[in-house]
Order: sequence, then C-alpha cells, then structure tokens
Amino acid sequence: MHNPHSGEIAVLNNIGKIDLHRPSGIITLTTDFGLADTFVAQMKGVILSINADAKIVDITHQIRPFSITDAARAISVAYPYFPKGTIHIGVTDPGVGSERRGLLICAGGHYFVGPDNGIFSLVVKKAPDFRALSLRPLEDYPLSSTFHGRDLFAPVAAMLSLGKSPESVGSLIEEVVMIDLSEPTMTNGSIVGTITAIDNFGNAITNIPLIKVSERSFKVLFRGREVPCYKFYKQAEGKGLGYIANSQGLLELFVFNGNASEAYGIKVGEVVTVIPL
Amino acid sequence: MHNPHSGEIAVLNNIGKIDLHRPSGIITLTTDFGLADTFVAQMKGVILSINADAKIVDITHQIRPFSITDAARAISVAYPYFPKGTIHIGVTDPGVGSERRGLLICAGGHYFVGPDNGIFSLVVKKAPDFRALSLRPLEDYPLSSTFHGRDLFAPVAAMLSLGKSPESVGSLIEEVVMIDLSEPTMTNGSIVGTITAIDNFGNAITNIPLIKVSERSFKVLFRGREVPCYKFYKQAEGKGLGYIANSQGLLELFVFNGNASEAYGIKVGEVVTVIPL
Amino acid sequence: MHNPHSGEIAVLNNIGKIDLHRPSGIITLTTDFGLADTFVAQMKGVILSINADAKIVDITHQIRPFSITDAARAISVAYPYFPKGTIHIGVTDPGVGSERRGLLICAGGHYFVGPDNGIFSLVVKKAPDFRALSLRPLEDYPLSSTFHGRDLFAPVAAMLSLGKSPESVGSLIEEVVMIDLSEPTMTNGSIVGTITAIDNFGNAITNIPLIKVSERSFKVLFRGREVPCYKFYKQAEGKGLGYIANSQGLLELFVFNGNASEAYGIKVGEVVTVIPL
Repeated sequence: MHNPHSGEIAVLNNIGKIDLHRPSGIITLTTDFGLADTFVAQMKGVILSINADAKIVDITHQIRPFSITDAARAISVAYPYFPKGTIHIGVTDPGVGSERRGLLICAGGHYFVGPDNGIFSLVVKKAPDFRALSLRPLEDYPLSSTFHGRDLFAPVAAMLSLGKSPESVGSLIEEVVMIDLSEPTMTNGSIVGTITAIDNFGNAITNIPLIKVSERSFKVLFRGREVPCYKFYKQAEGKGLGYIANSQGLLELFVFNGNASEAYGIKVGEVVTVIPL
Repeated sequence: MHNPHSGEIAVLNNIGKIDLHRPSGIITLTTDFGLADTFVAQMKGVILSINADAKIVDITHQIRPFSITDAARAISVAYPYFPKGTIHIGVTDPGVGSERRGLLICAGGHYFVGPDNGIFSLVVKKAPDFRALSLRPLEDYPLSSTFHGRDLFAPVAAMLSLGKSPESVGSLIEEVVMIDLSEPTMTNGSIVGTITAIDNFGNAITNIPLIKVSERSFKVLFRGREVPCYKFYKQAEGKGLGYIANSQGLLELFVFNGNASEAYGIKVGEVVTVIPL
Repeated sequence: MHNPHSGEIAVLNNIGKIDLHRPSGIITLTTDFGLADTFVAQMKGVILSINADAKIVDITHQIRPFSITDAARAISVAYPYFPKGTIHIGVTDPGVGSERRGLLICAGGHYFVGPDNGIFSLVVKKAPDFRALSLRPLEDYPLSSTFHGRDLFAPVAAMLSLGKSPESVGSLIEEVVMIDLSEPTMTNGSIVGTITAIDNFGNAITNIPLIKVSERSFKVLFRGREVPCYKFYKQAEGKGLGYIANSQGLLELFVFNGNASEAYGIKVGEVVTVIPL
C-alpha cells in the first residue's frame, strides 16, 4: 500500500470502463509557483517544444505554497468547465524528488497529471469511474530532484495532447494517495462547516453546500450570531455581513461592495453552523 | 429609462450604420477577479468549450474590487490596440443577480460584452456610432445569481466569436447606463485635473491630455509647487518629481528609476493644475 | 563605442555563421510592467494586429521595476526551454526615449528583441555565436518616448514571426551593451557567491553552480555557520536551513515546507561561501 503520509487514505482504483475522451489539445496549469519566477514559463516552453499547437490555460499559480488542499480544491472547481479531453497539470509538490510517484488520472473524460500526493483527491472522489497510472521517467527528460513539473508532468501532458496513450507514459496502479479535505459534519441535526477559503473580494467560502439545505427552514450562525440570507450581493446594500449561495452552490459570507474578511477579521478554518428551525 | 444608480446617466443609443466587423476569434478579459481564485479559469473553460479555437487574452484581472470606473478606463485604453473584430468581456459587476441588464455593445468595429453598469462608458463616449443590445438568458447556461461572467458573458462572447449575430443573443435597446468619469475642468483659463491611477512603477497618471496643451506655454502645479517637464524618463535622472506626456498622451507625474507615489505619498484623487503663462 | 552607462561593457559582435532558425510563431514576454496595468495587453494587441496567429507566452511581468539584472536572469533561465525559432521580447527599459538603441539579437536559434541596455547580456555571454542588429523605427508605428515595448519591440517581434528577415527591421552592429552580472569569485580556494534572488517559496538562490563543485568534498557556509546538504526538499523535513542543487543547477538555501527568506531574514546580496575540506 502506497501511503507515505500519515492522515492519508489510499483508495482502490476503479479500472472499469471509463470515458477516455480524445485529447482536446488544451492543457491547464494549477501550481503554487506564483507568477514572479520563471517556473511556469519553463513548463510552457517544454510543452510547446513537444506540441507547438497546445493551448495552455492557467487555472491559477497562486495556490498557497505547499497547500495540496488548496490545489485540490482549485482543480476540482475549475476543471468541469473545460471541454472533455482537456489535460490538467497540478503541481503543489513538497515531496518532489522523494519516493512519491508521478500520477496520471483519467476521470470524467479529462486527464490529470501531477504528483501522487492527494492533489487530485476531489477529482477522484467525484468520479464514478477513474483510471490511475504511475508515470515512468521519460528518456529524453532527465529528472531534476526539485522540479518534476518541468521534467515530467509538462512533457507527459504534451505527449498526451499529441494523442499518445496513457499506457505509453505510465503503468496502471490500484491505489492513489488521498488527502482528507474537511467536510461539514452533522451534530444534533445541525450542519457544522468551516471556512475553507477567502476569495479576491474577501468573501469567506465554506464547505457547506446550500443546495442540500435549500428546501427546508434553517438559520445560519457565525460566531454565535445569526447571519441574514441574500439572493444576490446587491440585496445586502448598506447592510453588514450576510450569506449567499455562491457560484459553486456553497454557503459564502460576504459584505456588499466590501471585504468581509478584512472587515470582520474572518479567517480560514472558522466555523459556520446551519441550524434547522 | 433604465438608470438604476444615482449619478449615472443614460444615453440615447445610436443605431445608425455601424462597422460590424467580422469577429476575429480574439476574446479579451478585463475583471476584478484577481488571479488567485479560479473565476477567470472558469470563464476560459466555458469559452473554450464553445469555441476551442478562441484566442483569449487577459487585459487585466486586477481591477480594484467593484471599481467600474477603473475597469472602464482599462478597457478604453487597451481595446484600440487589438484588431477589429475582437470581442472584449468586461466584468466588474457588483450588481450581478439584480435587475441590471447584460449588455452587448458594437462600436468601432469591436464587440463589448458585460453588465449594463457603465463599464463601457468610455467606449461609448469615444465611438461616433454604436449599437447596444440587452442580452437574453441562454438556454444551455443556467444563470447563477453571482457569476454572470461565467454564465452569460463568456458564452455570449464565445458564440459571437463563432460568427453568431448580435441579434441572436440580444435585443436592441436605446439607452445604456453611463458613469461619470471625472474629466479635467477649466477654471479661469487653468486646467484642473486629478490623478486617476497609480501604475506599477508608482507613476501618477492624470486625466489631463497633454496634446491639448502642447502648443502653448504653461506650467504644471502639484501641491502648490511647479513640476518640471521632461521628454523622456531618463532626462530626469538624479532629479526629483517631474512630469511627462505618457504613452496615452496624458500628463503623468514620475521619478526616474523611483516610485513617485511612494516617495511623495501621492494618491488617486489628488489635484494637478495646468496654468497658462 | 556605444557604452552609455558606467560599469557597462561593450562586446564585439560575432557575425560568424549562426543558426537562424525559422520563426516558430511563439513570442514570449518578459517585463517589469506588472499585471495590474494594461501595458502588457497593449503589446499583445499590437502583436495580434500584425500576426493574429502568434502564440504569446508570458515569462514574467513581475521583474522588479527597472531591474535590468533581474530581467536578464529571467530571460536567460527561461528561453532555452522554448522551441528554436521563438522570439523573446524583453522590456525593462528605464532609458526609453533616450539615445539608447533598440536591439535584435539572433543567438542559439532564438530571437531576442528589446532595448540595448544589457537585458540580453546573459544570452550573449552563453551564445557561442550571435548576431546583433540595431532596430530602425517603423513607418506605421510612431514611437512614443515612454513605451517602445508597444511601439517598436512588439511590432518587430510580430513581423519576425511572420517571416520578415532580421535585416528588414534593423542594421548589423558590432557591439552591444553588456551589464556586469555578479559571478562567484575564488578566494584562497574557496568559492564566494551571493544570493541573487528569493523565489516564490522564499528559497534563496545563489550564483554558485553546484555542478562545478559536486565531485569534490566541500562545505557550505552562510553567516559563518555550516549549512547541511540535501538531495531533495523533503529530506530536510523537520530540520532548519539546508541547501540543495536547484533545478538550474545552482546552490539554493531552503527550509522544507517553509519560507527560508522570511524565517531567517535572508536578503538578495548576502554572501554564501563554499570551502573545500
């Protein structure tokens, strides 16, 4: 069993019939490299050297350094909007150079390439069926011990985008590393969730899906106080903190035309509770 | 009359003969989404799912949150450098989900898609002729109440890039919302302008076009002191604050190889005066 | 001899037989413009107006304002990963509008377009043979005195990408401006290097190539203390500051899953010494 980190869960790989969609030529990148250094450009250069027609799209390079959890969420949120056949590279890879494997996941008609450290946990969790392969080192790309994004994941993605088969770059494996992404819990009929991210506007995003609770009566508590509900942001004009079902269907705390996180000092990890009336 | 915000001006829509240039396949994005979240990538995924050949170019995603004014300026400055037929999406949209309309503007051979909140005010002001359409909801793209960039503007732009007609996505309207973008005023023969932006170098950009004043004798005052004029930045080497006609033909305060805004604490909104001699 | 700044070195241009690779249609951009303003988008618009099929890739736009040294390093590190025939625009240009020339360098099968201020020093230093041309003003693109990235370098790069010859945009010159990029020195058998950059993770990158020293016994000193060596980051789990040969083969100080620069207050310019045992 391949499970190098405590708290991680290996799952059986489902190798049933899956949708292996023809590669679209689109390759997305999600990393914690930032935009000031040239790491991202090095990866793009490698991709374009193999497939000059590849269409490279940045998902984000501003994942908090080393946060596999944040990268897993970003990839999971963004990938379904891309056409089937898109190849998604994810690199938040503190274990680079160690014994951790390189991974190719085929799921939902998309391809995912990155380290086997749980970065694709949410993709795998959502997919009814998926196939996982352990990447083999490439002959023409010597592996540095610090930058597999450039030396392995980029060239593998570029090769897949040219139509190379998954089997030509990796070997089927039965388990992949999963990480534990906090999910809301039920306590005495209440849903206890947490704030998982603060977005560019200072909105505080929870892990509580509002669809699940939308057809019943309930109230939302934050720091012991009830927070009013709004259907759209502007409805809260001139008022304080409110909540909304955001564009991912998640409960989100916000202030209209303001920064809720700054105004109220809201931090990732704080608790939000949904109580039935 | 559609004029939801105080201080906004509705203008008659000119529906004369306009230059409806064939779409170029280029789609630009200007938003206040930042680059850390996945909002921009979701929009790009939607566009590429409709038109995999679309060429997407970021203008900027670092508009100050909720600043329609800044977005209006950015779009207005950048779009003329793109080829005719380019489709420009602008999203700074605090009113998303409210009654504000979605807008398509055809002007100057370009297309503009975004909320009807004044974000295209400067485009409309500059265009001799333009056509405005109110967007209809799309059958295949359910509208969230918080993210029309993804659910409406991106798919509309992608459809236009494939050659769909403006009329197929919207209905002609006669008025659009305009915002009041501060312009310099004439007082006793002097031009009184304001600083509208601080750029990446700390240069303070005013709304005073220097072309208008370039053939007469005048002096420039800032905080009661005369500021010397330079033709290019390096001319001010070893000197303090100076001004220049920048690459938009606007009066700009700067320090050579320094950050004028930090060195002098210059802020958006401060006054700059041009006095004839 | 064209040598406008003290401390700069002009080099003879080698105009021997060079590899003039057919343009690939890929144009990269390295600037100190940041991503908040529209400077970069204006350049992209100009390029796409000339060659709508150009493939534009950002190397970085977060070069420290005015730092020709940082831009020279970024371009030098990133360009070899791109296919031959790629055109690289570099713009960190405090001397824009002055007498400094515009430059086209052909070296190593790549093209480099930017100001003649030393920004391509490392490219030239590494190239066995190169050709340099002084750019001529373009008829259709009036030169502003503040933004040659848009008015000269972007259109020249776009024209080259369409197959125009170097000679059609510039005239052969025999010398180019070089800047002095600090290199490690040998003192009493020790290598004395400096920290040249802090990356997104807080890693402190030196100018000491570890390949040169890898086959001998030596120790690394920083602030008078020996720093332990690791093969990959995770090997230093739970330990403090270590060093590694990074993905450029350079000695790099780091903390596993931490920010070495913040934790130890490490700054660009600090000394690192390699002492033989």
